[in-house]
Amino acid sequence: MPDVKYDVLGLGNAIVDVLARAEDDFLARQGMQKGGMMLIDEARAESIYQAMGPAVEISGGSAANTIVGVASFGGRAAFVGKIKDDELGKVFAHDIRAVGVAFDSKPAADGPSTGRCYVLVTPDGERTMNTFLGAAQNLTPGEVDAATVASAAITYLEGYLWDPPHAKEAFRKAATIAHSAGRRVALTLSDAFCVGRYRPEFVDLLRTGTADLVFANESELLSLYETKDFDEAVKSLRADARLAVVTRSEKGCVVVAKDDTTAVPAAPIKQLVDATGAGDLFAAGFLFGLARGRDHRTCAWLGAMAAAEVIQHIGARPEVSLKDLAGKNGLSV
Amino acid sequence: MPDVKYDVLGLGNAIVDVLARAEDDFLARQGMQKGGMMLIDEARAESIYQAMGPAVEISGGSAANTIVGVASFGGRAAFVGKIKDDELGKVFAHDIRAVGVAFDSKPAADGPSTGRCYVLVTPDGERTMNTFLGAAQNLTPGEVDAATVASAAITYLEGYLWDPPHAKEAFRKAATIAHSAGRRVALTLSDAFCVGRYRPEFVDLLRTGTADLVFANESELLSLYETKDFDEAVKSLRADARLAVVTRSEKGCVVVAKDDTTAVPAAPIKQLVDATGAGDLFAAGFLFGLARGRDHRTCAWLGAMAAAEVIQHIGARPEVSLKDLAGKNGLSV
Repeated sequence: MPDVKYDVLGLGNAIVDVLARAEDDFLARQGMQKGGMMLIDEARAESIYQAMGPAVEISGGSAANTIVGVASFGGRAAFVGKIKDDELGKVFAHDIRAVGVAFDSKPAADGPSTGRCYVLVTPDGERTMNTFLGAAQNLTPGEVDAATVASAAITYLEGYLWDPPHAKEAFRKAATIAHSAGRRVALTLSDAFCVGRYRPEFVDLLRTGTADLVFANESELLSLYETKDFDEAVKSLRADARLAVVTRSEKGCVVVAKDDTTAVPAAPIKQLVDATGAGDLFAAGFLFGLARGRDHRTCAWLGAMAAAEVIQHIGARPEVSLKDLAGKNGLSV
Repeated sequence: MPDVKYDVLGLGNAIVDVLARAEDDFLARQGMQKGGMMLIDEARAESIYQAMGPAVEISGGSAANTIVGVASFGGRAAFVGKIKDDELGKVFAHDIRAVGVAFDSKPAADGPSTGRCYVLVTPDGERTMNTFLGAAQNLTPGEVDAATVASAAITYLEGYLWDPPHAKEAFRKAATIAHSAGRRVALTLSDAFCVGRYRPEFVDLLRTGTADLVFANESELLSLYETKDFDEAVKSLRADARLAVVTRSEKGCVVVAKDDTTAVPAAPIKQLVDATGAGDLFAAGFLFGLARGRDHRTCAWLGAMAAAEVIQHIGARPEVSLKDLAGKNGLSV
């Protein structure tokens, strides 16, 4: 078995967020489902951009945000995702490398432009996302380097990878390599609508042990088991998954193991400014703790702390060192 | 004389800000003069970007920020500036139009890319700027539409226009048209280093009455008259300028008229997060008040309020409606 070179390797859609504030009636007029993520084509992207207010461009992408969080905790991190060699692609590559993440995916020379997510943040801090996948459409198994995967303690995969045509093959390839090397594989269900699109396949990923650990928020979990009963869903989850973490916004999270359930409260915040990245950063803290051999409760605390940081400002990436923040909270890692 | 169609028309370098936090020793290592604006070429831009941390892209440009501020107050505003037809150019055009500013400058089809300013924000909230002018280099008098200038109550010009080769001709053309139409011309000295580069020409703009109103901060004023004595500089300013406003950061501002001096305190803030845009937004409030016929003290209050808003968050453009903010402060305009 090769030495561990990375605490966490992430595989996901490489996306730049285009964030703007919007009122609820803007979402209504645009036919957007509040709090969700819709896939859009380039024409719709143009039309949304035309209609929305002044924006800020910040690197995003769910798994990419998580990996940046891991690096901010002081973890060794790598990311695989497809950008184009255009201005936004350069922004994505710069921002992820600037925090010390290894990012060696070759940018596409032609084809669709770097993926963008038009994020509308309503006055309540909720975010509604519209994703034009762009270059991320073309993530293939060829992008997955076996040696890199084998040298990562945990390989982290996002459910959103089921959207592009070949990314799920890259996902399966990475999972196979990781397990062959005796490593762990983690999965996020990404989004309740995404679960709706790929429910049987996601359940299968848990039952077959393709994923050793799964992250889900409450609505994703309920969607996965098509129920409104949280306890029943947790029971099903315990049966299907080796280890699962269910995040419940201000109600904290529940770590569901085969023989044990651990509830951990949310970290306190002063004000919810922008919920973008809450789940991504929770996963960052949990995965970093896990890679460093901490118990589930500590992993969940780290996740809760990172999520609390990211929802108190605009954008889905931490603005302070999570390592320092953990130290201040007596969670030196 | 045509009807007033715009309260304020701005002419300036069209720039997208690339903002990142940095420690003081980063500035030292990079040989940057803290608090200043340095002009850089494309190679230096690449090298700074490579070295700096994860960034956020937000539309900027000094006069452009001011014009966006005027629009946020509910003013009718227009902007002239040169972008390229690239991704950042589209970002600039989107953001300024999204707040209701008329922006009809044709993007360049080729030549250098849209201008960028690499802004490093130190822990004390001070910003240090490195500007790659890019497409803004090619602003020419041909971009200035006579009818638009003639229909603006105030034409606002930035001293930075002395940097590109032909923009000063565009500046002079706009000033001539404005005065022929019986309108007012305002100027900002932009930056102490900029004053150092063009001192005799800036003094001339005041003495000849090319500018009816000039904005300067304390260091720009001292640089203009090459003195360390503030009172002496104000005396010279009163002799040279019809009307001037000197901003003094937390000490507030001084409105210098021929026969009167009005000191107005700064608006209170909770925390200085990022000083980028303080002067630009001060000018926005003052110009809007002036265009709407308010007295100098009220104009200065509006400026102070707008500056206080913009320095309490990242980026040089207001995050809330300045019209609403003015209303809440009993300054309905």
